[in-house]
Amino acid sequence: MQASEAMTFTSHMSLALDAARAAAGRGEVPVGAVIVSPDGHVVAVAGNRTREQNDPTAHAELLAIRAACAALGSQRLGGHAMYVTLEPCAMCAAAVSAARIERLYYGASDPKSGGVAQGARVFSHAQCHHVPQIFDGISARDSEALLKEFFANKRKG
Amino acid sequence: MQASEAMTFTSHMSLALDAARAAAGRGEVPVGAVIVSPDGHVVAVAGNRTREQNDPTAHAELLAIRAACAALGSQRLGGHAMYVTLEPCAMCAAAVSAARIERLYYGASDPKSGGVAQGARVFSHAQCHHVPQIFDGISARDSEALLKEFFANKRKG
Repeated sequence: MQASEAMTFTSHMSLALDAARAAAGRGEVPVGAVIVSPDGHVVAVAGNRTREQNDPTAHAELLAIRAACAALGSQRLGGHAMYVTLEPCAMCAAAVSAARIERLYYGASDPKSGGVAQGARVFSHAQCHHVPQIFDGISARDSEALLKEFFANKRKG
Repeated sequence: MQASEAMTFTSHMSLALDAARAAAGRGEVPVGAVIVSPDGHVVAVAGNRTREQNDPTAHAELLAIRAACAALGSQRLGGHAMYVTLEPCAMCAAAVSAARIERLYYGASDPKSGGVAQGARVFSHAQCHHVPQIFDGISARDSEALLKEFFANKRKG
């Protein structure tokens, strides 16, 4: 990987972390996602809104995919990259596949609810028709710290 | 199972099949879903709208869950049942779990893209925090016939 590429994906993950922090500020589990076009433009940024929207499907990844598809007028995001602060759950991983996202960068692993490297391992079956390139552990410490702080405050509250 | 219960769930699946037929009429893959409250009222009916809405997440099940949650003002559908004409994919199965749906009735198996009895087997992992009761093969022939007709016509067209 070139240095300039590394800087770019760190800055995209920073945007995702900002969206995660904003989600925490709304009382939502702090997860954020960013979608970047093939030419490097940010086309969608979203944080979790399950509580606010009374919608169990309103995870950061799904909201970002829906926003990017709406902006593009397409149900496919070929060539696009997603940056998300936490390992996607099975629902979100399958949505990444359905949207044909080309590269998936994620932060912290999620042993409790993850569906990429554990559990359902959504991308590891013949029933998954598109598998993105996957890069894990990006800014994982920042993402983990956000989640830990959120749940520690919740227990105190 | 009592005869009256059998009649009820056949009629709910008929509604889901109607929604699947309506989806085919819109040029969408014919899948329909219905959500029924604990006291037996239909709270949401939806068919696939991925093409119309340019949204790869707009599967019948997700649209029905989002509509039912919006109607109830809750992100949980405890005690509710879903009737869907085809085995849910991994995305939709995980959404059924996230919504805490109590009973999942589905029609045809989906060896190509299913995520319940094959592939990701979403409900079969510790990372899945709620497992519904599952009843498969309900009106499966009608559901399969609809799908076969749709794809046969597509190949002709």
